[in-house]
Amino acid sequence: MDNLASLTDLAVESRNIAIERTGGEISGVTLDETEVDHAKITRVEVLNEQAGQQIGKSPGNYVTIESEDFRSGDRQVHEYLSGVVANELNNIMDSSSLGQNNGEETILVIGLGNWNTTPDALGPRVSHHLLVTRHLYDDAPQDSREGMRSVCSLSPGVLGLTGIETAEIIRGVVDRVHPQLIIAIDSLAARESSRLASTIQISDTGIYPGSGLGKQRIGITEEDMGVPVIAMGMPTVINSVNIVNDTINHLANNQNVAGEVQQMIQQNNISEQLIGEILQPFLGDLIVTPKGIDKLIGDISRILAGGINVALHPDIKAEDVSLYLQ
Amino acid sequence: MDNLASLTDLAVESRNIAIERTGGEISGVTLDETEVDHAKITRVEVLNEQAGQQIGKSPGNYVTIESEDFRSGDRQVHEYLSGVVANELNNIMDSSSLGQNNGEETILVIGLGNWNTTPDALGPRVSHHLLVTRHLYDDAPQDSREGMRSVCSLSPGVLGLTGIETAEIIRGVVDRVHPQLIIAIDSLAARESSRLASTIQISDTGIYPGSGLGKQRIGITEEDMGVPVIAMGMPTVINSVNIVNDTINHLANNQNVAGEVQQMIQQNNISEQLIGEILQPFLGDLIVTPKGIDKLIGDISRILAGGINVALHPDIKAEDVSLYLQ
Amino acid sequence: MDNLASLTDLAVESRNIAIERTGGEISGVTLDETEVDHAKITRVEVLNEQAGQQIGKSPGNYVTIESEDFRSGDRQVHEYLSGVVANELNNIMDSSSLGQNNGEETILVIGLGNWNTTPDALGPRVSHHLLVTRHLYDDAPQDSREGMRSVCSLSPGVLGLTGIETAEIIRGVVDRVHPQLIIAIDSLAARESSRLASTIQISDTGIYPGSGLGKQRIGITEEDMGVPVIAMGMPTVINSVNIVNDTINHLANNQNVAGEVQQMIQQNNISEQLIGEILQPFLGDLIVTPKGIDKLIGDISRILAGGINVALHPDIKAEDVSLYLQ
Amino acid sequence: MDNLASLTDLAVESRNIAIERTGGEISGVTLDETEVDHAKITRVEVLNEQAGQQIGKSPGNYVTIESEDFRSGDRQVHEYLSGVVANELNNIMDSSSLGQNNGEETILVIGLGNWNTTPDALGPRVSHHLLVTRHLYDDAPQDSREGMRSVCSLSPGVLGLTGIETAEIIRGVVDRVHPQLIIAIDSLAARESSRLASTIQISDTGIYPGSGLGKQRIGITEEDMGVPVIAMGMPTVINSVNIVNDTINHLANNQNVAGEVQQMIQQNNISEQLIGEILQPFLGDLIVTPKGIDKLIGDISRILAGGINVALHPDIKAEDVSLYLQ
Repeated sequence: MDNLASLTDLAVESRNIAIERTGGEISGVTLDETEVDHAKITRVEVLNEQAGQQIGKSPGNYVTIESEDFRSGDRQVHEYLSGVVANELNNIMDSSSLGQNNGEETILVIGLGNWNTTPDALGPRVSHHLLVTRHLYDDAPQDSREGMRSVCSLSPGVLGLTGIETAEIIRGVVDRVHPQLIIAIDSLAARESSRLASTIQISDTGIYPGSGLGKQRIGITEEDMGVPVIAMGMPTVINSVNIVNDTINHLANNQNVAGEVQQMIQQNNISEQLIGEILQPFLGDLIVTPKGIDKLIGDISRILAGGINVALHPDIKAEDVSLYLQ
Repeated sequence: MDNLASLTDLAVESRNIAIERTGGEISGVTLDETEVDHAKITRVEVLNEQAGQQIGKSPGNYVTIESEDFRSGDRQVHEYLSGVVANELNNIMDSSSLGQNNGEETILVIGLGNWNTTPDALGPRVSHHLLVTRHLYDDAPQDSREGMRSVCSLSPGVLGLTGIETAEIIRGVVDRVHPQLIIAIDSLAARESSRLASTIQISDTGIYPGSGLGKQRIGITEEDMGVPVIAMGMPTVINSVNIVNDTINHLANNQNVAGEVQQMIQQNNISEQLIGEILQPFLGDLIVTPKGIDKLIGDISRILAGGINVALHPDIKAEDVSLYLQ
Repeated sequence: MDNLASLTDLAVESRNIAIERTGGEISGVTLDETEVDHAKITRVEVLNEQAGQQIGKSPGNYVTIESEDFRSGDRQVHEYLSGVVANELNNIMDSSSLGQNNGEETILVIGLGNWNTTPDALGPRVSHHLLVTRHLYDDAPQDSREGMRSVCSLSPGVLGLTGIETAEIIRGVVDRVHPQLIIAIDSLAARESSRLASTIQISDTGIYPGSGLGKQRIGITEEDMGVPVIAMGMPTVINSVNIVNDTINHLANNQNVAGEVQQMIQQNNISEQLIGEILQPFLGDLIVTPKGIDKLIGDISRILAGGINVALHPDIKAEDVSLYLQ
Repeated sequence: MDNLASLTDLAVESRNIAIERTGGEISGVTLDETEVDHAKITRVEVLNEQAGQQIGKSPGNYVTIESEDFRSGDRQVHEYLSGVVANELNNIMDSSSLGQNNGEETILVIGLGNWNTTPDALGPRVSHHLLVTRHLYDDAPQDSREGMRSVCSLSPGVLGLTGIETAEIIRGVVDRVHPQLIIAIDSLAARESSRLASTIQISDTGIYPGSGLGKQRIGITEEDMGVPVIAMGMPTVINSVNIVNDTINHLANNQNVAGEVQQMIQQNNISEQLIGEILQPFLGDLIVTPKGIDKLIGDISRILAGGINVALHPDIKAEDVSLYLQ
C-alpha cells in the first residue's frame, strides 16, 4: 500500500481521496448507500487488485455505519445501533465461507490495541464486554448449544509491550483453538475529524495491526491465518498530519480567507504527501482525539460487543442485547 | 485578557507571541535564564498592568523549569527534578507574604481538573501523591511539628461535573480551614507541541480554572481567596487551533516548502487570530496530546508532589523525596 | 453510639442484632415490609432517642430496597430498579421539609468516599453519572426550569487524602451554594455477607463519613449542615470482624458441626464484642468484598444516579432514565 | 493435589500445615533460611513425589522473600528488593537447564491474571512494566545484544474472559516464538493474612493458572510447555475460608478466650477441611484483600519487573533498576 493509505483506515475515505486526486470515479470500486433509523450505511466493494491499488485498500467488502448517535450517550439508541451492527455483521458472515455453517463453529474474537491507552483500548474493551462461551460449550446440553455459538476471545496486546508481532500470537492461538472465523476489533485512524467516534467499519479483508510501524511480516488475514477474518473498528484518533490537511481544506473553503490559502492549495505545489513527510518527525508523537474519549470508548465498546453477541448467538434477541453484556 | 492569551497558559510563550507580533522587546517584562543539571530555568516577571495587557498575563512572577527528562522515565533524574521544583517553589514562597512565616501555617493544595480524563488529571493526581498532615498536626508532638507543616489538599472537580464554580468550592473550604497559602495545581495548555510534558510553570499570580469556558466570575487568586495563591502546572494538551499555527510556522521554516507558505505567512494577511476564529467550531471538540500521556501524567504528578513535599516540610530532605510520596 | 453500631451501617441489621441480644421486639422501632417487582422494600422507623440508643442508630426513617437483581447485570431490570429508588427517594423528600417546595430549590449531592479504592468509590461514581444543572439553571428558559431542578454535586475525598474533615468541606460549600437539601451517597459496611451489593438504604438522618476513624467532630447532618440531609448507600464491604461472627453463626446452624460450635455460641461466653476486640488489630487491615466488585460498583452507581435523576427532575421519566446518565 | 493444597499457593505455608497435622517434620522436604538486609529468604526443596503429596506441592525448589518493606512505600528499599529478587531469580535460572546458556536465548514472560480486577492484576502489571526487547533484538548491533537478552511478554487474560484455557494460549505462542524459558507471574492466595503483600515466591515447578476452577487440563509446566518454567508471585488475597481458620487459631492463642475456643480446636472434631466444605458455598463469592491494594499492586509489580529486568539483562545494573522500568 502506498503512503496515502496509511492516512486513513476507512475505505470510504480512501475512495474519496482517490477521487479528489484523479478528479473522477475509480473503476472497480462500487458504492451503495442506505438510510436506516439513526444511521447511514455505506457499502464499498473493491472488486480487484488494480482498484485496490488505486485506493490503497485490499479487494473485498467494506461497510460503514455512520451515526451521530454513537456520541449521544442515549443507551436506548445505542441498543438499537447494536442491532444495526449485528445485521451488517451477519450479512458479511453470510457472504463468507461461514454462510454454509452448521452453527457449531468456534469463533475467535480478537481485541487489538493497548488497554492502557484510552483511544487504543477499543478492541480490549469490546473483548471484555463480550459473552464468551467456548469453555462452557462442550458441557452444555444440546438445546442450549443450538442457541449459542462457541465464542472465545483474546486481547493480545501490542508489539511494543509484548515484543511479539500480534499476528504471530494470534496464529499460535488459532493453531490450538482451530476457529472457523476470526473477528478482529481495533481502534482506527480517520482522515476527517468528523469521523471520530461516529463511524463503524466492518470488512471481510482482514487487518494489519499497528500498521503505522510498517514492520509486520504477517497480517490478520485469511492468507496468514488460514481462516476467514472479519475486521471491525471505529476511528478514535486522527493522524496529526491529517488534521493539518483537514484544516487547510477547511480554510480553503472559508470565504473569510479567500486569497492566499486557496491559491496555495489549488496550485497544489504543496501536496498532502509532502506536508506529511515534513510534519511526521515534528507531529508524529502527538495524538488527536475527541474530548470525552474515556466515555466514548466505554459506550462504543458496549455497542460493538452487543452487536457481536446478537450476530453470533441465535438465542440472543436484539431487544435483549443489554442482558448479555459482560 | 485578549483572545491571544487563551492560546497558552505559559508566560514564556505569551511573551514570545507578543515579541513576534511587535517585533521587539516588551517593556515591563523581564526575563532571566539559568541552567542547572537536567533543566533550564527561566524567570519571567511581569512588572505592571500595562505589560500584563501586552502579553495577556497578570503582573507577577512566572518560573518555568524545562527538561526533556520529564519525559525520560528515569526515576533518579525525576527525584533530582523534584528537588529543582522544591527550590523554585521555596523561592516563590519566600518572596511572598509567607516569607515571614513561623512554620505553623496551614497550606491548602488544590488539585484542579478532572480525574476521569487523563490529560486533565494532573492536579488530582498530584493531590493524591501528596503528604497531607493537617489532620495529624494538632495531636503531633512539638518536635515533629517543627519538621512538618500543616498541609491539606482538595480536588474539587470541574464545573461540568459539579455545577459549582471551582473557585466557589475552594473559597468555601478556605473559610473553614483558614490556610495561610493556597497552592493550585493544574494541567496547562501550551502553544508549541514541544512544550508538552516538558515544562513546569510556577507562578505567584493565581489561576482561573477551566478558563476556556470564559464564564468564571471568581478566580483562584489572592484577590478572591483572601490569601496568597501559587499556581503550578505543566502543559498536557495543546489547543487544536495552536497545532495549526505551530505547523504553519514549521512549514514556513522548511526549505522544501519554500514559496507559497512563507509568502502566505509573511504577508500575514491570515493572522493567527483569524485562523483561530475560523477553526474553533471545527476543531474545538478535539484535544491534541502526547502519545503515552497515561504514563507521563503518572511520572510528572509524582515529580510535582515530591517537589511540594520537600518544599513544605523542613524535615523531608531532597534525597528522601520518594519515601514520602503517597 | 456503642461499639455494636459500627459493625453495620444498615438499620435493618442493627435492629436484628438488638433483637438477637434482647430476645424480643425493640420498643420504639417500627418495621414495615412491602414487595414490588424485583425487590423487597423494608421501612424501619426509629421513633425516639431511647430506641435509637438500643439499636445504635439515630431517630428517623430508614428504607432498604433489597434485590438480587442489583448483581444481575441485567440493564433493563437495573433501569426498573432506578425507578424504585426514585420512588423511595421521593417519599423521603416529601416527608421532609422539602415536601412544601416550589421546585426552584438547589440540591447538593455529595459523593462520599475514595475514588481510588474500588469498594469505596460508590459515592464519587454516582456523582460522576449524575445530571448536574445548577451552572445552567439561571440562564435556562422558564419552561425548561420547570422540568428541572437546580442540582450540583461534589466528591470531597476522604480525610486521609485531604487532611480536612469531610463534613467541614461540605459545610464550607453549603455556605457558598445555599442548597435546600443535601443528598449524601456512600459505600456502606454490612454485617452479613449476603447484603453485599444487594441492599440500598435511604435514610433522612444524615451520615458520619468514615465513622470508623471515630474522630469526626461534625457530621453530615441537618444539625451540622443547617439543611435536611438524606443519606443513600449500599454495602460494598463487610468488616472482617463481622465475617467471623457471620461464619460462626453459619457454622452453628449447620447440622454437620453439631456439638462444639453451638455449645460455644450458645453459652455466649465468647461475645461478638469480645471477638471484635481481639480481632481488630489482627484483621483490621483487611477488607472483605464481593468478587467482581469493579463491575458491581459500575452497575450500582448507574442505578443510584438514575434514581436520583428521576426523583429530582420532574421532566425525566422513569422509562428514559438511561438517557440522562452522564 | 488434595483439598488442602488449594488453600495456599506458598510452599512454606503448605509445609507448615503438613507439620501441624502430622506433628513432626515432613521427610523429603528441606528448609533453609537466610537473612539479608530488609528481607528473610527461605528456600524449600521438595525432593520427591511422595514428599510432594504430603504437602500438596510438586517436587522442585521454592524460594520465598519475606519483607515488611514491600508494603512500606519506600522506593529506595523497593529498588534494593528488586536486586534481591534478581539474585534469587538468577540462582533458580542457573540451576535450571538455562545454566548452560549462551545469552542469546529468548525468554517469554507471562503475566497471568485479570487486569480489570485489582488483586488479580499483578501479572499483567508486571508484564506492563517489563523491558521487552525481542522485536528489536535481531536488528540490534552485536555489542548491545551481548548486554541484553531477547525478552518477550504476554498477558493472556483469564478463562472466564477468553473462553480458552490460559495454558493453551501460551502453548500456541510458545510454538511460534520458541523461547528457551518461560517466567510466569501470578497473584497468589495465602493462608495467613500476614503474608499478604509481604512474601514473594519464586519456584521452578511451573504453575496451574486459576487452579481454583480445577478444570485446567494442561498446566504452565515444563511437561506441557516443552521448556522450563519459573513461576513468580505474591499473595494478594486470602481464601475467605482461610480467614476463618486463621482467626480461630488466633482466638485459640488469645488468653482472653481461654476455654471454649481452645477446647473446640484441640479436640479437633471440627477440622479445617470440614469448615472449608461448609463455608465454601457461603463465602466463596467473597475476597479478602489488604486495604490499599491498589497502591500495593502498583509498588510490587514495579519491584518484580525491576528484578526480572536486572536478572535477564547483563547490562542492567541493580543500581539502575528504575531506569529500565516501562
